[in-house]
Amino acid sequence: MSEVCDLATDLIRRRSVTPEDAGCLPLIGDRLRRLGFHVKHLRYGEVDNLWATHGADNAPGQRPLLVFLGHTDVVPSGPEDAWQSPPFEPTVRDGRLYGRGAADMKGSVAAMVVALERFVAEHPDHAGRVGLLLTSDEEGPTNLDGVRRVAEHFRATGERIDWCVVGEPSAKQKLGDLIRVGRRGSLSATLTVRGVQGHVAYPEKALNPIHAFAPALTALATERWDNGNADFPPTSFQVSNLNAGTGANNVIPGSLTALINFRYSTASTAADLRQRTEAILAAHGLDYTLEWNLSGESFLTPPGGHLREVVVAVCRDLCGLEPEQSTGGGTSDGRFIAPLGAEVVELGPVNATIHKVDECVDVAELERLPDLYQAICERMLLA
Amino acid sequence: MSEVCDLATDLIRRRSVTPEDAGCLPLIGDRLRRLGFHVKHLRYGEVDNLWATHGADNAPGQRPLLVFLGHTDVVPSGPEDAWQSPPFEPTVRDGRLYGRGAADMKGSVAAMVVALERFVAEHPDHAGRVGLLLTSDEEGPTNLDGVRRVAEHFRATGERIDWCVVGEPSAKQKLGDLIRVGRRGSLSATLTVRGVQGHVAYPEKALNPIHAFAPALTALATERWDNGNADFPPTSFQVSNLNAGTGANNVIPGSLTALINFRYSTASTAADLRQRTEAILAAHGLDYTLEWNLSGESFLTPPGGHLREVVVAVCRDLCGLEPEQSTGGGTSDGRFIAPLGAEVVELGPVNATIHKVDECVDVAELERLPDLYQAICERMLLA
Ligand SMILES: [Zn+2]
Ligand SMILES: [Zn+2]
Repeated sequence: MSEVCDLATDLIRRRSVTPEDAGCLPLIGDRLRRLGFHVKHLRYGEVDNLWATHGADNAPGQRPLLVFLGHTDVVPSGPEDAWQSPPFEPTVRDGRLYGRGAADMKGSVAAMVVALERFVAEHPDHAGRVGLLLTSDEEGPTNLDGVRRVAEHFRATGERIDWCVVGEPSAKQKLGDLIRVGRRGSLSATLTVRGVQGHVAYPEKALNPIHAFAPALTALATERWDNGNADFPPTSFQVSNLNAGTGANNVIPGSLTALINFRYSTASTAADLRQRTEAILAAHGLDYTLEWNLSGESFLTPPGGHLREVVVAVCRDLCGLEPEQSTGGGTSDGRFIAPLGAEVVELGPVNATIHKVDECVDVAELERLPDLYQAICERMLLA
Repeated sequence: MSEVCDLATDLIRRRSVTPEDAGCLPLIGDRLRRLGFHVKHLRYGEVDNLWATHGADNAPGQRPLLVFLGHTDVVPSGPEDAWQSPPFEPTVRDGRLYGRGAADMKGSVAAMVVALERFVAEHPDHAGRVGLLLTSDEEGPTNLDGVRRVAEHFRATGERIDWCVVGEPSAKQKLGDLIRVGRRGSLSATLTVRGVQGHVAYPEKALNPIHAFAPALTALATERWDNGNADFPPTSFQVSNLNAGTGANNVIPGSLTALINFRYSTASTAADLRQRTEAILAAHGLDYTLEWNLSGESFLTPPGGHLREVVVAVCRDLCGLEPEQSTGGGTSDGRFIAPLGAEVVELGPVNATIHKVDECVDVAELERLPDLYQAICERMLLA
């Protein structure tokens, strides 16, 4: 097996179900320390984060700084016997490496480590600094103690990141066919609409919050929040959960709860969307409360950005593909790094099997991924 | 204590939580049998029903037939220590008899028994027949084996009821201030609206059934189903329960479920309402299923009906009140008797405490209730 497959296999074997790390980060930290990286474990709560840098005198704030960003935690496997081979026993079959995290994203993490090792071995005196930031809290429900906290630490210590390559699985069908150059923001809220509980036989003594909410719901669902822009589709609004009622069919419920979510483009801000939502609810005369949760601001690395151009060129030169430059999909930890002023681009393996049973990565593509990451290092940090 | 209080007390002491009878019906059957009543126990499934008649040669089908209708089952007490005195230990305090079922409707049942005993003792050769129909399955969720089944039996055996007095607690503040001369119908359905499940980040691949349903919900909630009529308020429509979503805020749900309920006047039929509901859903292009459940057709004893006039006169003469003649409130077992061709009127004690802790009935009013029922017998069955 190749060096990158060996390391990916070592990582998959560790049951690092979020937020567990199961020894993945110490293993990687030890390898990089031996090659002269400055390695820190940033531990917040129960979460381990690894921050390894190489170049110059390794003092925070020295620039330019190119960072590779990834996570070692994985989503649960579900019932193990639904898998063709056990999810935590990495297995190669028909040219694919199977196991939980193979694509999301222990394959990318292994490729980053191998790429960085080769780059600093071949170019010990490269310009600027190169870094690896790994968390074990990306797949969990809140991500409170992962890259979000590390970003606060960077802000507090004056660390500035110029460029950030995120290893999330971005490709659709072939490595290099799609890179992400931004992400939509994600803004959620819990909406409670209050009515007056009563018996269905006496509707005049009650106020049904389901009926009261219906016109506002129609207005929210049909609102055109923005038209998107060159880089983003229009902002989308979804009610993901709606619940009201006691279970009994003779009781008019006293309140209704809805979970709502915006995936929004850079054509809107979270503050705008909040204000417009409240205005629609208020215009319908509802008695309501909204608890907002901004889980990720939108970000965009605009066309012409140095990193974006280099990553496109690397896909073109090494994969022979003109990559789609997308802002689609969910959120990523890139949302915490972009606000530090970094250009953020995401490049990783095919994402078809992530979070599913029989998650896998193509072995040949996995073995090419360190070359891509190393080429990015060279084009960004060699004069 | 008076005879009616003694019997009410005996009944309350029996824990006849629906559908248990706890010996209430045999106790009453034995008393009436001793007075020459023809007594039958109509047992369906686990449910006991008592059918006692007196007059003529007691053969089914002999008329006119005046029936008193009641139930011996009660709703659960809830936590007993929330009560000032234990719910199944009848207690008189401040002129009120406390206990589960005191008002709904062991008080009325005791009053009916005492009234019938006195009536047949004083008028052994009254015209027509007088009957008492009691069930132990009125308060349960389905009422499948109570008066619904008895009515089928009547239909099959050619028993015809001319007049039916239901003892449900009808009064608002004083005995005789309100009688019920009909009830709205109750028509329910479980509505399932299907969409396509997906991730909120990819709304274009999903179809949110919450969003799809919103305009139809608005239309249903604002539809004027009818204008009611002289005896009924307009038909009312309520969504009592609405549920959609997996709990996760990043998943667009695949379906939505709503429980809907009509309380409808005689200005509409159940068939009309079903057809109009389906038309509204279809007009909004929804992929849906509706499972209908007609729990009670509406019924009305119109003004000028003989029983209705007599009950009004009895309230006027014995209580000194001009009773409100209402069709409001929930349903009652009268809905099964009315379709047999009977005039149905409901007269019982104050309903303020029914189904609550510290359920009670005013002792003085309870002691007057046999007089009212006996007066009805006399005015209906003495030439
Ligand atoms: Zn991931
Ligand atoms: Zn009742």
